[in-house]
Order: sequence, then structure tokens, then C-alpha cells
Amino acid sequence: MRYEEFTIEGRNAVIEALRARKPIDKLFIQDGCQDGPITTIKREAKKQDCIVKFVSRERLDQMSGTGKHQGVIAYAAAYTYAEVEDILQQAKEKGEPPFVFLLDNIEDPHNLGAIIRTANLAGAHGVIIPKNRAVGLTAVVARTSAGALNYTPVAKVTNLSKTIEELKRQGLWFVCADMSGTTMYQLDLKGPIGLVIGSEGEGVSRLVKEKCDLIASIPMKGNIDSLNASVAAGVLAYEIVRQRM
Amino acid sequence: MRYEEFTIEGRNAVIEALRARKPIDKLFIQDGCQDGPITTIKREAKKQDCIVKFVSRERLDQMSGTGKHQGVIAYAAAYTYAEVEDILQQAKEKGEPPFVFLLDNIEDPHNLGAIIRTANLAGAHGVIIPKNRAVGLTAVVARTSAGALNYTPVAKVTNLSKTIEELKRQGLWFVCADMSGTTMYQLDLKGPIGLVIGSEGEGVSRLVKEKCDLIASIPMKGNIDSLNASVAAGVLAYEIVRQRM
Repeated sequence: MRYEEFTIEGRNAVIEALRARKPIDKLFIQDGCQDGPITTIKREAKKQDCIVKFVSRERLDQMSGTGKHQGVIAYAAAYTYAEVEDILQQAKEKGEPPFVFLLDNIEDPHNLGAIIRTANLAGAHGVIIPKNRAVGLTAVVARTSAGALNYTPVAKVTNLSKTIEELKRQGLWFVCADMSGTTMYQLDLKGPIGLVIGSEGEGVSRLVKEKCDLIASIPMKGNIDSLNASVAAGVLAYEIVRQRM
Repeated sequence: MRYEEFTIEGRNAVIEALRARKPIDKLFIQDGCQDGPITTIKREAKKQDCIVKFVSRERLDQMSGTGKHQGVIAYAAAYTYAEVEDILQQAKEKGEPPFVFLLDNIEDPHNLGAIIRTANLAGAHGVIIPKNRAVGLTAVVARTSAGALNYTPVAKVTNLSKTIEELKRQGLWFVCADMSGTTMYQLDLKGPIGLVIGSEGEGVSRLVKEKCDLIASIPMKGNIDSLNASVAAGVLAYEIVRQRM
């Protein structure tokens, strides 16, 4: 794990961090604390599936860097969401045509982490995920990204279709993965491109698919339906890499 | 999930199945049973991380097909290991040059499942795994293979290097994935081929690598070290698919 961890101490700071949806890896609460703010912290932590450990006051004193923990210390992961503009900026700085991943509701954090890892290694400039109905940058995602989250910006948008429209105006083409499409080897995937990957169960949603310029299929020679979402993303991304070389 | 489940009833049958390392999906034990055989079953189940449920005698009576459950019923997954010959036979029947995956100590069952899934869809004729130090065909592997285990034979061998030698005599070429290799797009990956994938942490072991004819590298344009093992397997497998088309 390469992402830096930092420590948040004190009731208000921790409540604030939780409400701002900062990804908390672990929450340490003083054993026996039952008052209002602590109850609020427990409730918020539960909402976000934080790991909570109840420890002695002495333990918290040892862990504390400020000496003012007020019965609660959180370990947070230090990464924040980027803006879509940051991603385009990165492409500009590298002097490359933009190459962006768009994930239409990936739900499994292991898949999201593996896809961010792939995006980094395939030379993509960033990853765009929707705000709702998809997994965010949890600690599991950070871990399975194998450090890629430190380098590859991830932006969260309200409406993926709308973002696609905006990016089209900036010259990007969009290709989505779907069984109904043309074999990927026959498509021209060079130039500024957005690669759209669908969710594990449903694939790419109809509204998003309609916005795409190209529909690419991965040749399927077997008996079952589909590849794992992160494997499919890797196979498509590397077809883009090959064509760009 | 498409793999068929079958039911094993009775103490000796269940103990035997557990000791033979048959993958048990779920174990139902009569609530309150504490005698020797049941204790043995619980211990063996714990070793293998089986899901154990304690249920009433009435529940077991309902589930039982034989009426002789003796307080224990196991749901097992119905797949067995194939032989290397079965894999070559499958290639022969399809009239295709053999295409085999060899996994050098994949340890994560999710990765193994995803790789078997990829092997199926990329049109490989089978997967070979080593007996020791690697994950076997557990229930998690079956699940993450998304049904591919019903179609793609998986063989377990004592010594991967030796198996490679034997298969070479049958005309196969071997390519392994390693950062030090030639970019995969520049290699000729047509013909009868064995694709060797290394473990998550260590990559392909030295002894196995020495047996390989070709070393292929996936272009890495990012900041981190390596792709997820199942993604790397997918990217390489589909480069083979592309060249074979």
C-alpha cells in the first residue's frame, strides 16, 4: 500500500470528515463512550461501513499526535476526487490525445481498484465515475488499485451522459463495450477517446450507450456470457494502446 | 451460478468428502450435536473455511434425500480435475492448435476464477495449475469463474516445469508474461501455445521462466509496477486471440 494515511483527531473533526465522505480506513473510539457526538460518529460510521474499533483511553493517548483526541481517532486515506478538467489537463501536459475511462456503475470495489490500476498502466489520463449507484474510492479500492490512485485522477460526475456530451464538444470520441458491437480489432480506436465500461451485471446502460460513437465487442469464443468487468476493461484498453503505438 | 450442486449426507460420507478436499459450499449440522464424528467434521470444515450452518433436526429431515443424514448434510460443488491429456484432446476435437493457460501459483481464488472465465472466452482448451502452493478449485473459484468451470477443464500437476517439457515434446510453444520480455505485439503467438501467468506477488518463477520459449511483456505506460494478475492474463490471452484470427 502506497497511499498515505493521515490521522483525524477529536469529535468535530471526525464527524466533519465522515459527513464529507472522506474515506476512513479505521475508526478508534474510546470504550464506554456513549454521549451524543460519539453516537453521531457511530451512526455515520455505520452508514459508510467504516471499521470501528473500541479501545482504551490509554491506547488512544498513545496513538494521538495532538493529545486532544476527545475519545476518537480516525485513520483516513489521503486522496480526493479530481475534476474532469484535471484529467484533460493531464493529457495536455503530456502532449497526448486524451484517453479517459468512464465507468457506468461498477459496484465491486475490487473491480474498481483493478480498473484504476489498468487505467494507470495503459496510459489513460483519468477515470470518471458516476456519483450515484456506484462504488466510490473506498479503502478497498485504494488497496486493489496498487497505488494507482496516487497518480491517476478519478472524477465523480452527476450524470455520465451529460459528461459524455460535454467531452464530445472537446473533441473526444466514445467507445463502449457491448456484445452487440463490432469486433474491437476492426474499429479505429486512435485519437482522443473515452472508453465506457458497463456495470458487472447490467453492462452499459441504454442512455449512455446511445451517446457512444462506437460499440466495440470483445470476441467471445467460449460457452459463458461475459468476461469479468476489470478483465474486459483491460482487454479493451490494451487494444487502444496497441492501435496508438 | 451454473455449476451443479450435489448433496452429501451422513457422517462418514461428509468426513470423507472433506478429507478428500471436495469443495463444500455449505455444511448443515444438527444444532446441539457434540459427539466425536461431528467434532471431527467441524474441525475439518474450519480448516477448509466451509460455511457451517447449525439447523434443527426437522430442517435436516426436510433437506434430506435419503432420510439418513445422521445430523449432517453437505452441499458440494460438482467438478473434478481433468488430466492434461483431456485438454489436448479438447483441442484435437475442435480441430484447433492447442491453447493452454498455465498458472504459476495464483493464490487469490478471485483471480483464479476470473482467469478460468477468461480462458473459456478466449477459446483456450484448458488451464493447468500446480498442486502445491496455489489455490485449488474452491467454491469461490467456481463462483467467480461464472460457470466457466463447467466447460473449461482444469488440470493439477505436481511440477509445472516438467509438464512444460512434456508438452513441448507434443509441439507446444510456451510464452510467459514478464516485464523483462519483448512487447507482446512484436511476438509471433500463433500456433500451439501455452500461456504462463505468474503469481500475484512474485511473477513467474525462475525455473518455469527458463523453460519458456518466449517472454512477452505488456507495455506499461504508467507509474506503478504491474497489472492485476487476472487482467494481465486477459490482455495477453486476447493478444493471442487477435493473432490467431
